[in-house]
Amino acid sequence: MRTITWDEERQVMKMIDQRILPQEFKILNYDNYRDVAEAIQIMVVRGAPAIGVAAAYGMALAALHSKATSREALLADLKEAGEVLNQSRPTAVNLFWAVQRMQEAAQETEGSPAEIREALVRLAGEMADEDVATNKRMAVFGAALIEDGDTIVHHCNTGALATVDYGTALGVIRMAHEQGKQIHVFVDETRPRLQGARLTAWELEQYGIPYDIITDGSSGLMMRKGLVQKVFFGADRVAANGDVANKIGSYMLALAAYDNGIPAYSVFPISTVDFELERGDLIPIEERDPQEVLALDLMGRRVTPEKATARNFAFDVTPNRLLSGWVTDRGVIQPPFKENLFAAMKIEDEQ
Amino acid sequence: MRTITWDEERQVMKMIDQRILPQEFKILNYDNYRDVAEAIQIMVVRGAPAIGVAAAYGMALAALHSKATSREALLADLKEAGEVLNQSRPTAVNLFWAVQRMQEAAQETEGSPAEIREALVRLAGEMADEDVATNKRMAVFGAALIEDGDTIVHHCNTGALATVDYGTALGVIRMAHEQGKQIHVFVDETRPRLQGARLTAWELEQYGIPYDIITDGSSGLMMRKGLVQKVFFGADRVAANGDVANKIGSYMLALAAYDNGIPAYSVFPISTVDFELERGDLIPIEERDPQEVLALDLMGRRVTPEKATARNFAFDVTPNRLLSGWVTDRGVIQPPFKENLFAAMKIEDEQ
Repeated sequence: MRTITWDEERQVMKMIDQRILPQEFKILNYDNYRDVAEAIQIMVVRGAPAIGVAAAYGMALAALHSKATSREALLADLKEAGEVLNQSRPTAVNLFWAVQRMQEAAQETEGSPAEIREALVRLAGEMADEDVATNKRMAVFGAALIEDGDTIVHHCNTGALATVDYGTALGVIRMAHEQGKQIHVFVDETRPRLQGARLTAWELEQYGIPYDIITDGSSGLMMRKGLVQKVFFGADRVAANGDVANKIGSYMLALAAYDNGIPAYSVFPISTVDFELERGDLIPIEERDPQEVLALDLMGRRVTPEKATARNFAFDVTPNRLLSGWVTDRGVIQPPFKENLFAAMKIEDEQ
Repeated sequence: MRTITWDEERQVMKMIDQRILPQEFKILNYDNYRDVAEAIQIMVVRGAPAIGVAAAYGMALAALHSKATSREALLADLKEAGEVLNQSRPTAVNLFWAVQRMQEAAQETEGSPAEIREALVRLAGEMADEDVATNKRMAVFGAALIEDGDTIVHHCNTGALATVDYGTALGVIRMAHEQGKQIHVFVDETRPRLQGARLTAWELEQYGIPYDIITDGSSGLMMRKGLVQKVFFGADRVAANGDVANKIGSYMLALAAYDNGIPAYSVFPISTVDFELERGDLIPIEERDPQEVLALDLMGRRVTPEKATARNFAFDVTPNRLLSGWVTDRGVIQPPFKENLFAAMKIEDEQ
């Protein structure tokens, strides 16, 4: 079952509601782009690649339901829909990439509004399929880095749920397991929304991969104790120099890995690279509702004082110097990132 | 109101139940050492200095309720009580220090069992008073490191609740505030038991010090954004070389501070130093019940899969190289720790 699917007959996008997993498994239907933008904002769907595909379907829905009878009017409606979708979350670049790709496709499609509508629904479907193929390709590249017997720290959720299917960093771990390697995963619970404790733990159970949940502050000690061999996490936006914006806590995890001589890798498709940003400090970091931090019950009891305030940045930036490599759909890129990525892309283009 | 008090009339120790703060304020009475050991184990009382004083009163209660009629029989009963108390938690050295000090006092007190009993109750009270005086002294030394306008990251709870009164690292922050310095505190929520979000936030409200709660993985980003000037945390055991065992997450916080050129200090009385351990890796690290990590509700909903497992180490070790100094009751010790601490102790002894 994919995280995002298209119901051809009813012309609706279906998404798993990730806010209530693993206790409830519920599919929600989306028939207009404004609801899709809201679903991204409130995190019904999350994970950079999944957000990108959801936004693509949002654009397809905008086209389908536009009352435009002329090509120009339809393109104008798509421009507005793109702006609404782009405002849903600021950090993951796949969102902007997907919206732009849909807009360009609309402009390039010749013919009537009906033909544009059809082309956009088709392209969104292609982007969903591409995502799965890309992930499996990255997984093969990344799995080669994992040795039999490795214990791996993983942050947030980067699995099937963060993508259309298979996952990025968790896809690498899954592939190593499918290759028969005996591995163990320490799952960072990933405060505040606990995507690790909720979603990654749930996925690992489905795949039969042994794991333990740990608090986000624990991996440093476990590395010092010699219990960890590798670190893998995803990316929400990567600067041209290889600095990686990812879920809050990734930077401190990478620092701990670096301090203990443990290789740390970020896993992402090329669509996550923002070539226009020279370095990570330029990536806009989303600050979310403090209630995500404050509304926490421990053993059935609200724990924070009534008037407590919080800061809630959703992402941080890991400087390129802390990473051993970047696992992409063009292979594992070694430092320096930019030069080696361009070389890999050039080789691929020539093939 | 002190965290731990002695009811002279009823001969019971009273402690604030720290498991249910800040929603409920409840005082529990202890009239025997076995219940005191359990209270330490289940964290009715926590914080290295508070644990030490609670254990001292536990020894006093053991003496009071011992049926021994001879000096030798009483000393044997105290030996047994000390063993029970020492087993309650393995990392904080103040516990062993307090038990040993009470046992030595019993041996050194001449006269009848009644005289020994009286001496032990008196000594426990003196240790409680000493703790408060020591903390205020450290606070003055440490507050000199804080500048007007500083924003400080603080981990776990090291306030009045972690001691008999006033606190260690939080005492330093409180003193700077009392000196009129405008400060702001980022309170690490401190998973899994959330002593920051629960206890430190509550204390800071009492003192009128502005704060925001943050998740444990957030401080790295905030440092990179230039929002942090200092880091202060406590210590549960300090090795002779200045490596500091403290609440899980301290090591990764210190790494982030170091990576950003932000001074980080550990604050503790000399009784927290274990001169017998050459370095931090030799400090035993308590692993607690995985349910502390797993039993977590988010917005009223249990989040972890039913069969999920967890690892739950309560402390980690920060290597001395990551700290800018150690705030003790003998002054602020600069690196190298051992040499400068011995020099400070020598100066003090000569005065």
